[in-house]
Amino acid sequence: MSQAQLMDGTALARRIVEDTAKRAADLKDRTGAAPCLATVLVGEDPASVTYVRMKQNRCRKAGIESRHVALPAATTTAELVGTLRALSEDPTVHGILLQHPVGPHIDERAAFEAIDPRKDVDGVTLSSYSAMSFGLPGFVSCTPGGIMRLLDEYDVDPAGRRAVVVGRSAILGKPVGMLLLGRDATVTYCHSRTKDLSSLVREADIVVAAVGRPRLIRGEDVKPGAVVIDAGYNPGNVGDVDFDTAVTRAGLITPVPGGVGPMTIAVLLEQTVAAAERRPGV
Amino acid sequence: MSQAQLMDGTALARRIVEDTAKRAADLKDRTGAAPCLATVLVGEDPASVTYVRMKQNRCRKAGIESRHVALPAATTTAELVGTLRALSEDPTVHGILLQHPVGPHIDERAAFEAIDPRKDVDGVTLSSYSAMSFGLPGFVSCTPGGIMRLLDEYDVDPAGRRAVVVGRSAILGKPVGMLLLGRDATVTYCHSRTKDLSSLVREADIVVAAVGRPRLIRGEDVKPGAVVIDAGYNPGNVGDVDFDTAVTRAGLITPVPGGVGPMTIAVLLEQTVAAAERRPGV
Repeated sequence: MSQAQLMDGTALARRIVEDTAKRAADLKDRTGAAPCLATVLVGEDPASVTYVRMKQNRCRKAGIESRHVALPAATTTAELVGTLRALSEDPTVHGILLQHPVGPHIDERAAFEAIDPRKDVDGVTLSSYSAMSFGLPGFVSCTPGGIMRLLDEYDVDPAGRRAVVVGRSAILGKPVGMLLLGRDATVTYCHSRTKDLSSLVREADIVVAAVGRPRLIRGEDVKPGAVVIDAGYNPGNVGDVDFDTAVTRAGLITPVPGGVGPMTIAVLLEQTVAAAERRPGV
Repeated sequence: MSQAQLMDGTALARRIVEDTAKRAADLKDRTGAAPCLATVLVGEDPASVTYVRMKQNRCRKAGIESRHVALPAATTTAELVGTLRALSEDPTVHGILLQHPVGPHIDERAAFEAIDPRKDVDGVTLSSYSAMSFGLPGFVSCTPGGIMRLLDEYDVDPAGRRAVVVGRSAILGKPVGMLLLGRDATVTYCHSRTKDLSSLVREADIVVAAVGRPRLIRGEDVKPGAVVIDAGYNPGNVGDVDFDTAVTRAGLITPVPGGVGPMTIAVLLEQTVAAAERRPGV
């Protein structure tokens, strides 16, 4: 039985981060200041604490300063908006990351919109979404951006191909569909209300699973030779794709872990340095 | 041979405009000022002149004041942006319509973005697009909004149905797909690079043709009983759908003219009154 080629996100992410680190060092040489990413965390959810710490560690290794703002779980929307606006106006901060999900008592959209689009290196603002939708300058959402980089790395041209995006979240499903559409794929958005997901997946040249349901995409539904991108995160290092069966039919497939995951942080770091490079006076 | 039921946009638009006229009159009674739509036209393209005049006439009949700004063809992007910003700040103007396309020497996106989203009654700004994409408060693009109203009028619930949108323009194809996705349809975007459009149309419960190619959608490809929305405008009152053959297979179909067209202006007028109702101090 044939085996798909693995799309090695770990290796590609490492190369992107190496390049990013050089740019960060160069910027510090030229301006005296390293790029700075502000991370904002509301509450102490253990998974979120871990994610933020991981991002800070990666920043440090790449020569990017990180400034952490820890807010209590009881923080109001107005307080969070105030914090994000202050960071948006702080000239020593170049990128802003609000770790999400925030608590249910907070208006997450209002919080995201308090981030200056020029510092929106996580690609969560409506401005960034619009830019992705219409091919305008701006930052991309990190996971969608990472997925597009993986496709490019493995010479997958989406033009004229059927792409099926499973999931329609604001920072993953919707924007990755728009990026694929911008590259001339024929894009179908599937979701929890979709009937007969299997038959849609069977027609797809490119499948992006981004829904957070373990092994939702069955290998038997993967079109032989298709490109399978698993952006799902589920407990136990399980993706949204049933990898063991999909790998026997796909042409290219991302492993979990080591596929999309490392790309997300690589894009975050790269965009932070880009934001610092573009700031006034540089 | 069975015949599809016609979706009568003329009749529905008339009812919407009647209701809008009542709201406009009520607003004038309460505040002393009628709602006001500013129309901006660059150059003297005969089709554009006709469209603007038609919109002005419809405004007058609905009790909406219109203020026309005619700019010479040689107007620069900066000048147009200046005009639109001034209208955005003018408290006596409630809605702004920039007739488009503007000339190729103008940055249309920059012009659209000079319109205050609170006055974007034509639904052309990135802010309005984002609102449509995420179900946030805001104005809709008029043709997509009119299409959704037609679907509601004929009790078409998009949830769980396959919708195929042919076309991906910024103010028609992309937003109507997002509105359908927001109503839980499984949405596929097709366009000039799509291979085998016929087979995709054959699977569609709802087809929205929005590309401007005469009779691109062949009746033989329409799934029996499907809902066929023709948002195409081509010379000689020809839509993007081959009506004569499609009508024998569809369950519901919009005629051209008299389908989507009248809805577009009705939504424009309705949103203008809504903008006036929401202005500060009312």
